Amino acid sequence: MAYVSAALKSRVRRPQLLQKVMRAEDTLGFFKSGQYMGWSGFTGVGYPKLIPLALADHVEKNNLQGKMKFNLFVGASTGAETEDRWAELDMIDRRYPHQVGKHIKQGINEGRIRFADKHLSMFPQDLVYGFYTKDRPTNKLDIVIVEATAITEEGWIVPGASVGATPELLQMADKIIVEVNTRIPSFEGLHDISLCSLPPHRSPYLIMATEDKIGTRAIPVDSDRIIAVVESDHPDNTGPNHPPDQMSVDIASHLIEFLSHEVKMGRLPKNLLPLQSGIGNIANAVIGGLAEGPFEDVRVYTEVLQDTFLDFFDSGKLKYASATSIRFSPDGFHRFYDHWGQYKDKFILRSQQVSNSPEIIRRLGCIAMNTPVEFDIYGHGNSTMVCGSAMLNGLGGSADFLRNSKYSIMHTPSTRPSKIDPTGISCVVPFASHVDQTEHDLDVYVTEQGLADLRGLSPRERAQTIINKCVHPDYRAQLQDYLDLATKKCLANGMGHEPHMLDKVFKMHINLMENGTMKLDSW
Amino acid sequence: MAYVSAALKSRVRRPQLLQKVMRAEDTLGFFKSGQYMGWSGFTGVGYPKLIPLALADHVEKNNLQGKMKFNLFVGASTGAETEDRWAELDMIDRRYPHQVGKHIKQGINEGRIRFADKHLSMFPQDLVYGFYTKDRPTNKLDIVIVEATAITEEGWIVPGASVGATPELLQMADKIIVEVNTRIPSFEGLHDISLCSLPPHRSPYLIMATEDKIGTRAIPVDSDRIIAVVESDHPDNTGPNHPPDQMSVDIASHLIEFLSHEVKMGRLPKNLLPLQSGIGNIANAVIGGLAEGPFEDVRVYTEVLQDTFLDFFDSGKLKYASATSIRFSPDGFHRFYDHWGQYKDKFILRSQQVSNSPEIIRRLGCIAMNTPVEFDIYGHGNSTMVCGSAMLNGLGGSADFLRNSKYSIMHTPSTRPSKIDPTGISCVVPFASHVDQTEHDLDVYVTEQGLADLRGLSPRERAQTIINKCVHPDYRAQLQDYLDLATKKCLANGMGHEPHMLDKVFKMHINLMENGTMKLDSW
Repeated sequence: MAYVSAALKSRVRRPQLLQKVMRAEDTLGFFKSGQYMGWSGFTGVGYPKLIPLALADHVEKNNLQGKMKFNLFVGASTGAETEDRWAELDMIDRRYPHQVGKHIKQGINEGRIRFADKHLSMFPQDLVYGFYTKDRPTNKLDIVIVEATAITEEGWIVPGASVGATPELLQMADKIIVEVNTRIPSFEGLHDISLCSLPPHRSPYLIMATEDKIGTRAIPVDSDRIIAVVESDHPDNTGPNHPPDQMSVDIASHLIEFLSHEVKMGRLPKNLLPLQSGIGNIANAVIGGLAEGPFEDVRVYTEVLQDTFLDFFDSGKLKYASATSIRFSPDGFHRFYDHWGQYKDKFILRSQQVSNSPEIIRRLGCIAMNTPVEFDIYGHGNSTMVCGSAMLNGLGGSADFLRNSKYSIMHTPSTRPSKIDPTGISCVVPFASHVDQTEHDLDVYVTEQGLADLRGLSPRERAQTIINKCVHPDYRAQLQDYLDLATKKCLANGMGHEPHMLDKVFKMHINLMENGTMKLDSW
Repeated sequence: MAYVSAALKSRVRRPQLLQKVMRAEDTLGFFKSGQYMGWSGFTGVGYPKLIPLALADHVEKNNLQGKMKFNLFVGASTGAETEDRWAELDMIDRRYPHQVGKHIKQGINEGRIRFADKHLSMFPQDLVYGFYTKDRPTNKLDIVIVEATAITEEGWIVPGASVGATPELLQMADKIIVEVNTRIPSFEGLHDISLCSLPPHRSPYLIMATEDKIGTRAIPVDSDRIIAVVESDHPDNTGPNHPPDQMSVDIASHLIEFLSHEVKMGRLPKNLLPLQSGIGNIANAVIGGLAEGPFEDVRVYTEVLQDTFLDFFDSGKLKYASATSIRFSPDGFHRFYDHWGQYKDKFILRSQQVSNSPEIIRRLGCIAMNTPVEFDIYGHGNSTMVCGSAMLNGLGGSADFLRNSKYSIMHTPSTRPSKIDPTGISCVVPFASHVDQTEHDLDVYVTEQGLADLRGLSPRERAQTIINKCVHPDYRAQLQDYLDLATKKCLANGMGHEPHMLDKVFKMHINLMENGTMKLDSW
């Protein structure tokens, strides 16, 4: 039996499991190329660290690049030192359903990694349905590695800063390895865990308010399937938090004005309805803006908590938050751990099947806010793909929330920087080069230019509203021309419900790829 | 007080309301141009008939075309003699969220009617949220006309062959007129009615099986708001049922083979899971095929029941069906009324917010089957728009079911007839000219050529599978060329996750519009 530290002993309360303690290097024998493998982790927190690193070192040292490849299933993204290094070492064959990292993105777009993105609420369910393992001799994942912050007397897993798809990955695991992280505090009591039952034997999720708990405090597992326990002292490898820029502040201010108007008109209660906020700098700034805004007793039902949620809590205006992960910056995590007692009763982490559940989101009447790559004049949103073909990170939970919330809002700068054009690339285009959010899903688009309230509008009215309110002035005339030309042509042909010129519809994208700018000489 | 027939007396059990009986012509004074008006009705059944006809006659007789226009809210489509005649007489300004009819489609595509389609589960909810009336001085619809087959002692409305959005339309009505249809039997006992409560005061829909009832048997209304009761003897104006052709039979046979395989592999119970089947001839044929298929004790959780459901019931294989409307042919309705006792305990009609509820569809694990206009090689589906711009009928409930079901399936012939090309138009294209169903939603596409099981595949694998299995042989080489050319180009540029050539992506559509065929000389 390997050496067991006092710290590890204090975290692993099932004595039998201490007999399975080993060093990360000693687990290498469990792995072979072609395995279907699951990891815990979501938005770069709560993922296993030591074993993926040991495997990467093994591949590097033995020149096994491209010869030792795995099919990798994780709730969402992990830290760059794990999946992105694996991608660099050509260790990933298939990857579902989300990813973040320079090399993994490159591997996907150069055709080495077979990736598919999927609604984050649906991925764990499809896994349990056997949809991802349907062509295998066994329905199981060969091996699942999870990070825990404790193991209970029953051998149940207490996750760390994310729950994600860990319950379902463990449900589907043939063999399990647990990395117990003794560097960070035990998160016991901060999770509400539900497993996935199969239809026709499913019950409602009885969450009627963000703070309702419906599950267990740890993830039930059959501990006979645990083949190794490894002590880990690596922190979650998150990046720094960026202070909001003027553009984000302007977007936040348009949003607060809109929400205030909805309260005034009686369509929203004074304390709003549960907020969902996507990941990234704009989302972070919007929450920062709300922390200084007029709304009190606010609740949050979301996927990820970022740094500005700490400000929101500290302001006394945020009553309760439900999520599937807390993805703070290193400074944010210090602040969180230093004032643990202040935060611990104010939030709960659930599985992504529950945090992103259409059932609950619709019932609660959430206010969803996410950032697209681009959107089009009729209100379709592209959340995933550059110029129709190049994957960024994947769909995430954007469509889970935007389809089902009471208010479905996307926010983005009107332009993004480009190398050549001083205005940059327009985020509003005639036709989204990839459609992840349909015109039937969105209520509001907002840029630093203004807010387009599309509720109850027909497509041509929507287009005019978006051009007037959201488009950067440098692109306004160009998009107005497109709309006018397309409308004239299509109405004359009796095809004018949503006017398009299919021969010119991607001309701005094509010009960008060929000439580095979306500005056209003419249509 | 107007004459009250014995038939009407037997249906209206609240005596005070008999004092409000009048003829359709006598209601004309209640209407004026610009009103926000709701009708009951869904898929051409259960809509008011006499008053819309009287209004149309009034407009025609007094040359008020274009001068007496209404904003019309109906759960889905109504009979052609009402909304389509209104469109012909230019009586419709806005129309939500679905429609069927030659003139109304023409009015939309020529720019006279401001139409927007919306998920059918969401439309009634957005109405109650006040999203459609947000720019009005009042939150209400001015006037709502509903067809009833009875009125209870409490003054509650018993609908006919559809529930649709009637509960929410009545909730939002300032004034109500009821057409009591005494020609058809009272449908009392065949409905399960829920009203729409506002967040944060919403509860779960406690439907755990298709036959669970959670509501009332009639729609609660404040009868002081009922300003008139009109006796009606007009039947629902449905069209005939078409016998299945070979193509539909082939599609049904691929589907039954697929479902049988899933049962064999243990991913589906022997009696399947609740089926949803869209409207149209293929859907009708698929249900007909299932009536002769190997599955017993089947349950249905769907939007609409068509004629072949009667065969399915008669076969003894269909245990129970839940829907929001029964849209039989005239012959089908005769068969249904003649054998009323045989069918009446085997199905229930609910509001479209419940029949199409993501919550319930996901919990039950439905098998959804719908017909697209076209779909693309990566698995995006177009449910609404011809060549990107011309509206057909609207989204309907397709996305409610396809996003949330356990099995999300679209079925279509591989080609549709065209005037010029003997093969017709390909229903598989490089890029859907309008995206209503995303690649993240669909599991299976099936044509008469074969079935493409896309579960767990990356986009390029999906494309190859769809080309191999679904595309008509006359278009196979052309689409393969597109995929090969796009893949080569995009992988070389490091943009190959979902390869496209944006300058050629709609070339098949453009060639169709210009030359009447989707066959190209070259890419």
